[in-house]
Amino acid sequence: MFKVNEHYLKLPGSYLFSTIGKKVNAYSAAHPEAKIIRLGIGDVTQPLAPSIIDALHGAVDEMGKAETFHGYAPDLGYEFLRNVIADNDYKARGCNISADEIFVSDGAKCDSSNIQEIFSLDNKIAVCDPVYPVYVDSNVMAGRTGEYDAKRETWSDVIYMPCTADNGFAPLLPSQTPDIIYLCFPNNPTGATINKTQLQEWVDYANRVGAVIIYDAAYEAYISEEDVPHSIYECEGARTCAIELRSFSKNAGFTGVRLGFTVIPKELKAGDVSLHALWARRHGTKYNGAPYIVQRAGEAVYSEAGKAQLKKQVAYYMNNAHYIYEGLKSAGYTVSGGVNAPYIWLKAPNGMTSWEFFDYLLEHVNVVGTPGSGFGPSGETYFRLTAFGSYENTVEAVERIKKMSI
Amino acid sequence: MFKVNEHYLKLPGSYLFSTIGKKVNAYSAAHPEAKIIRLGIGDVTQPLAPSIIDALHGAVDEMGKAETFHGYAPDLGYEFLRNVIADNDYKARGCNISADEIFVSDGAKCDSSNIQEIFSLDNKIAVCDPVYPVYVDSNVMAGRTGEYDAKRETWSDVIYMPCTADNGFAPLLPSQTPDIIYLCFPNNPTGATINKTQLQEWVDYANRVGAVIIYDAAYEAYISEEDVPHSIYECEGARTCAIELRSFSKNAGFTGVRLGFTVIPKELKAGDVSLHALWARRHGTKYNGAPYIVQRAGEAVYSEAGKAQLKKQVAYYMNNAHYIYEGLKSAGYTVSGGVNAPYIWLKAPNGMTSWEFFDYLLEHVNVVGTPGSGFGPSGETYFRLTAFGSYENTVEAVERIKKMSI
Repeated sequence: MFKVNEHYLKLPGSYLFSTIGKKVNAYSAAHPEAKIIRLGIGDVTQPLAPSIIDALHGAVDEMGKAETFHGYAPDLGYEFLRNVIADNDYKARGCNISADEIFVSDGAKCDSSNIQEIFSLDNKIAVCDPVYPVYVDSNVMAGRTGEYDAKRETWSDVIYMPCTADNGFAPLLPSQTPDIIYLCFPNNPTGATINKTQLQEWVDYANRVGAVIIYDAAYEAYISEEDVPHSIYECEGARTCAIELRSFSKNAGFTGVRLGFTVIPKELKAGDVSLHALWARRHGTKYNGAPYIVQRAGEAVYSEAGKAQLKKQVAYYMNNAHYIYEGLKSAGYTVSGGVNAPYIWLKAPNGMTSWEFFDYLLEHVNVVGTPGSGFGPSGETYFRLTAFGSYENTVEAVERIKKMSI
Repeated sequence: MFKVNEHYLKLPGSYLFSTIGKKVNAYSAAHPEAKIIRLGIGDVTQPLAPSIIDALHGAVDEMGKAETFHGYAPDLGYEFLRNVIADNDYKARGCNISADEIFVSDGAKCDSSNIQEIFSLDNKIAVCDPVYPVYVDSNVMAGRTGEYDAKRETWSDVIYMPCTADNGFAPLLPSQTPDIIYLCFPNNPTGATINKTQLQEWVDYANRVGAVIIYDAAYEAYISEEDVPHSIYECEGARTCAIELRSFSKNAGFTGVRLGFTVIPKELKAGDVSLHALWARRHGTKYNGAPYIVQRAGEAVYSEAGKAQLKKQVAYYMNNAHYIYEGLKSAGYTVSGGVNAPYIWLKAPNGMTSWEFFDYLLEHVNVVGTPGSGFGPSGETYFRLTAFGSYENTVEAVERIKKMSI
């Protein structure tokens, strides 16, 4: 008789954003007249930029003619895309990353959940707390996290690195030595960043203890301050200890288009085994490439016109972020984030838990956010709002919250 | 110090089609004048059908306007696509499959390699031999296959079900009881099929022994004979034992577009754990949906115009299949397949091994095929040619092979 993967059964509840979706749908069904504003899931709302639309149409036309039709993509992605990524995201920032160290994929969610596969099940992971739930959940499903403590909402074999108001939402080096360290800066959900000196400390630490850093830089396009690194490869020694994950979802609005990439430098090795070779093997065996038309759209992100248009798009969302930050601050909320990231992190008022505040906001002012506790135990009593709504909805949501009696 | 997944290191060589690609590239570099015809990898060559192109352009336009922009897709795929799949692929054939049992993905390669994740590592798999290498390789990477015997090219914990000329390339029920049975009909690489009575025996067997069948029906659009089932759900009892994988790659030319789906009936359970729920959890946690524009393209596959255009496209390839089959047969080769599948399976002449014949064909007539041994030990001395080239190239390749002295 076949048996299921028992580790799946250890997962508490459903994926955070599925739970939120169900709660909102239930409320909406019961209150069809309610005008709900969603600042919960980090989904963008602005249309694709004109140069991306042009690139998509052009690529679609190519697919309609035998001479320019494209079948299976190369395992690692098309060279035209990997070259512009290497040039713009790395070489232009002084990072020594070559095109053949870039693996194009259908998005950072898949990459961030699949990357653990190339490591031993014995390896111990360390995660920021709170953080994007996929890092922990994908390790739970693989069987790497030990037992769940339902009361503390933690796993016995995971090293949690609390990111709290006390440490400016920047994790301290862990006291227990991890094998795999997940870092995400600008951080989801807190919107916090670390500066280059701080990141260099992590790189030095990883090289010293023989850990690998999985660096999720999905939000780098939102960095506005000078001293905040856009890539971990800005740090000395990162080529021997770091994998970087990147997404087109937030810098180019590709949440429904699906494109991302992972960088694995060729020097990154366990003994004489190259992680680059292992990931290439995974791509070759278990993946079949991002769509040609989507890779052409990705190329357009790096065109001069595309860059100018997307700069405006990012500025649009960051204007929302600023509006939320200032609005809630003026209303007496304790807020952070929103300067180098599209996320505002706020303390739930009056000692409410995160989910209590979620329900309160949904019921009283029909605004959807994300409970901080969904990102880890240290997120409890916190709440995340995203800047990805329309400006009009953002303004209205903030006005509603400001008027709300709490 | 971090460690790698040791199971990856057990994999012999690289993924079959990567090896072929490298060999062909090396030959091409050494002989730039050679006009190589590729009938190796199962990649299509005909452009996307006009109604699919129209749907893509329409969806791209939607993504360029705020009112019709689409962000993250629903976890399981858009309802508009799941509904037409349920209606056309299942209900129209009398199969009781509902839209919410369909999980849309970016292709059957990902699904067929990821599906093993929801099962226990203790489970034993059975595979047809020869077969699409992803089933075994993905289980190797997960650590489910035991040790590799390099001489026999088999894994100690895999049940191989030989598909040879003696049994008409249709596997017999295994003598050892498996937990998970991979079946692929029409078969890749042999092009063989089994009839409905034979498939019913497999369903009955699986229900009797408590095994789950993973049924890969990627080539069902090529079925021309009446008695060959298009879906395993045409059989009684399949809802309690079978998962079905489907692809848009071959019926609609989506190899570079990326779309597929997996069907898991809600009755399919291990004890009280539903596999549907586990796969939904995997989708929710580790996947972010197929692109909106691609799902709209998938919908167009089921429009009246789309169906008519794709029927012609399939007929075009099957005409190639017929040409290869008859041409090689008349030249004295032992051939099979090509009637319900776009693959021709032939015996290498003069006692050559599969790879010897691969090299011989490449060097003497510049035709690329796929060595049968790459699909499993029982494929040794066989060779696969695909019907997915252009008609002109197919004719020329066959003429070259017919003239070749062997």
